[in-house]
Amino acid sequence: MAIVVQKYGGTSVGDVDRMKRVADRVARTHRAGNQVVVVVSAMGKTTDGLVTMAQRISERPPERELDILLTSGERISMSLLAMALHDREVPAKSFTGSQAGIITDAVHGRARIVDITPGRVQDALDQGNVVIVAGFQGVSQDTKDITTLGRGGSDTTAVALAAALKADVCEIYTDVDGVFTADPRIVTTAEKISYVSYEEMLEMAAQGAKVLQVRSVEFGRNHNVRIHVRSSFSFSDGTWVGPEEDSVEDAIISGVAHDTSEAKLTIQQVPDRPGVASRLFSALADDNINIDMIVQNVSADGRTDISFTLPRGDCDKARAVLDPLCHEIGAVGVRVDNDIGKVSLVGAGMKTHPGVAAKMFGALSAAGVNIEMISTSTIRVSVVVAGDQVETAVQAVHAAFGLGADGLPEVAE
Amino acid sequence: MAIVVQKYGGTSVGDVDRMKRVADRVARTHRAGNQVVVVVSAMGKTTDGLVTMAQRISERPPERELDILLTSGERISMSLLAMALHDREVPAKSFTGSQAGIITDAVHGRARIVDITPGRVQDALDQGNVVIVAGFQGVSQDTKDITTLGRGGSDTTAVALAAALKADVCEIYTDVDGVFTADPRIVTTAEKISYVSYEEMLEMAAQGAKVLQVRSVEFGRNHNVRIHVRSSFSFSDGTWVGPEEDSVEDAIISGVAHDTSEAKLTIQQVPDRPGVASRLFSALADDNINIDMIVQNVSADGRTDISFTLPRGDCDKARAVLDPLCHEIGAVGVRVDNDIGKVSLVGAGMKTHPGVAAKMFGALSAAGVNIEMISTSTIRVSVVVAGDQVETAVQAVHAAFGLGADGLPEVAE
Repeated sequence: MAIVVQKYGGTSVGDVDRMKRVADRVARTHRAGNQVVVVVSAMGKTTDGLVTMAQRISERPPERELDILLTSGERISMSLLAMALHDREVPAKSFTGSQAGIITDAVHGRARIVDITPGRVQDALDQGNVVIVAGFQGVSQDTKDITTLGRGGSDTTAVALAAALKADVCEIYTDVDGVFTADPRIVTTAEKISYVSYEEMLEMAAQGAKVLQVRSVEFGRNHNVRIHVRSSFSFSDGTWVGPEEDSVEDAIISGVAHDTSEAKLTIQQVPDRPGVASRLFSALADDNINIDMIVQNVSADGRTDISFTLPRGDCDKARAVLDPLCHEIGAVGVRVDNDIGKVSLVGAGMKTHPGVAAKMFGALSAAGVNIEMISTSTIRVSVVVAGDQVETAVQAVHAAFGLGADGLPEVAE
Repeated sequence: MAIVVQKYGGTSVGDVDRMKRVADRVARTHRAGNQVVVVVSAMGKTTDGLVTMAQRISERPPERELDILLTSGERISMSLLAMALHDREVPAKSFTGSQAGIITDAVHGRARIVDITPGRVQDALDQGNVVIVAGFQGVSQDTKDITTLGRGGSDTTAVALAAALKADVCEIYTDVDGVFTADPRIVTTAEKISYVSYEEMLEMAAQGAKVLQVRSVEFGRNHNVRIHVRSSFSFSDGTWVGPEEDSVEDAIISGVAHDTSEAKLTIQQVPDRPGVASRLFSALADDNINIDMIVQNVSADGRTDISFTLPRGDCDKARAVLDPLCHEIGAVGVRVDNDIGKVSLVGAGMKTHPGVAAKMFGALSAAGVNIEMISTSTIRVSVVVAGDQVETAVQAVHAAFGLGADGLPEVAE
């Protein structure tokens, strides 16, 4: 008997009717002879509504209490789904993150899973139940307080439970058909990718493909969980995520991701002395500001500009840290550019195929797109461009590498 | 340092602004040097909304899942109240029923508290926090599942916690000033009672005074918890509930309660044989139908009518049990009368003062009210009258005993 973990996001359980459709699908999987564990998010905009209520109560709500508040959304959806299954004569039991044994550290709002003890889940499965688990939440190992895993945390709950239960597959249901070679709203010829390696999916997710939370992919890779990203509106296959060696056809390039949620911050005329960059970035790290790409220009007259990208929402926090530091180290000041976007080309095949970056830059140049920053990993090339050139850049790169219906993908030998 | 337990119902925390007012009051009690435990209900109509959602999902939602669903309402209010207190610079921590050690049996929907293990509550108090506990809920000793204590269960949570923590007082905040000699909407001269014994309060609550849940009063009596029923809209004293001997002034009569939520069911022409009544009422008990008053008429021609009152909502269930039984035992049939009301006179003093019942019946007769059924306890006389005569009956009895502003109460010697 196969164990199947299914995760349904807030849109899939957005109202009572959608909840019933999810119940139909779960019942179908159960009747096909599988042991089914379902991870659910809060219904639709429930979490946003709770956040708004908290903000009306307090400008800085304590994180412990915010986590208690936010986790009530999943309790509502999990119990309703269990009821809908009972109504379909499928025995079902719902469990909170704590009851399901999702053990985390004590960092409220973005806790990390440190252990899974799914004894109650396993018992309920063995008794013939469909088990429903509240996504996005756990319980702190040390304080026994309720914690949340951060936005998109339900993906991680699902993959972590799949790992602990040695599930045959972890299905992530979403409102699109899978992972695409580029955002179909920008590139009309974009196509669904049938298989992608954990490493490529990690790069895609980190670079703006929003279909899976980065941490869930890391968990999948570390525990070798087969992930199937698919649409809750159809029964056709979506995108499988698994080990690199399992790919049948090694396309050099998997897809183009883009991200318009970041800003570029430039510290001007930094004195070119050892230890200065370290001081700047240590200060930012101390304030939990996540830096993405960093570029340091060639020094002129003993001074240099240092630019980096960061989530746009962190700009004010970063300025508060950097403004006094600039004064101290003798830099001229900080300039913020909100109007940028990042375009990334991802593919495991580029490890063994030189010239991918050059071909990408050539395509951008031919399309009249100016590159402001570059960063690369072994399987990714990312560039920062002006915000209004992001779409052109994505289209040009997608076409240049013959992705989707733009042409047959280049295949590694 | 005194320990004060405060309970706020759904109306008191009905919206964000009211929640803030509750926080002000709690902060005031905390700053006055008390250790404060606050028990909260779900906000306003939250629980009703959740029930409606469950009904849209399933006609008979499983009780285990319904309990999980309903308890989410208290989680929302408890965390919001903790946030509001933090905002007032009062350290506060909220706990679910399970976290607060409210241990119950496994009867979902109307669980009974079997133990209280408030270790985490006591620790948090000792660290200087205001502790907020979700009312109405607990965790089953055997199954570890979430349970609810039934409507009004937050009163019981509060009194039970007060008992376990050996609190100095358990304050029940409500939208009226306390317990009245009669419903002020019916009797304009009704007055607040300043002290009432547990036994009297039990009778009043059981006979329709809705200000306290019966079970919470039982808990208070069994553990000698001083209960103070008071308004969340004022700082004046409400009604104290405590042992009989503590009453300063022993009024013969405390007040008049009424209840219009019951129906009267008559089984017609029951053969007058031993064991017949027992069979009828055993069958009803087996179906968990709560019978209140029972009257059996004088037998004529070997047949008799048996009448009883029960919650109006249970009538259909009772008929389903009785109709086939009537056929079997040879009774003629079942007649239901929904248009009745019960009026009760309650007072510890009547134990030692004969003639109270006679005086009450005289007052009713003088007011033209016909008595359909009578039942008495040592400290209560109840009568069933026609539904449209309930107000007249309450007013007549209230006046006859000189209650409230109708006159000085008769005082026992």
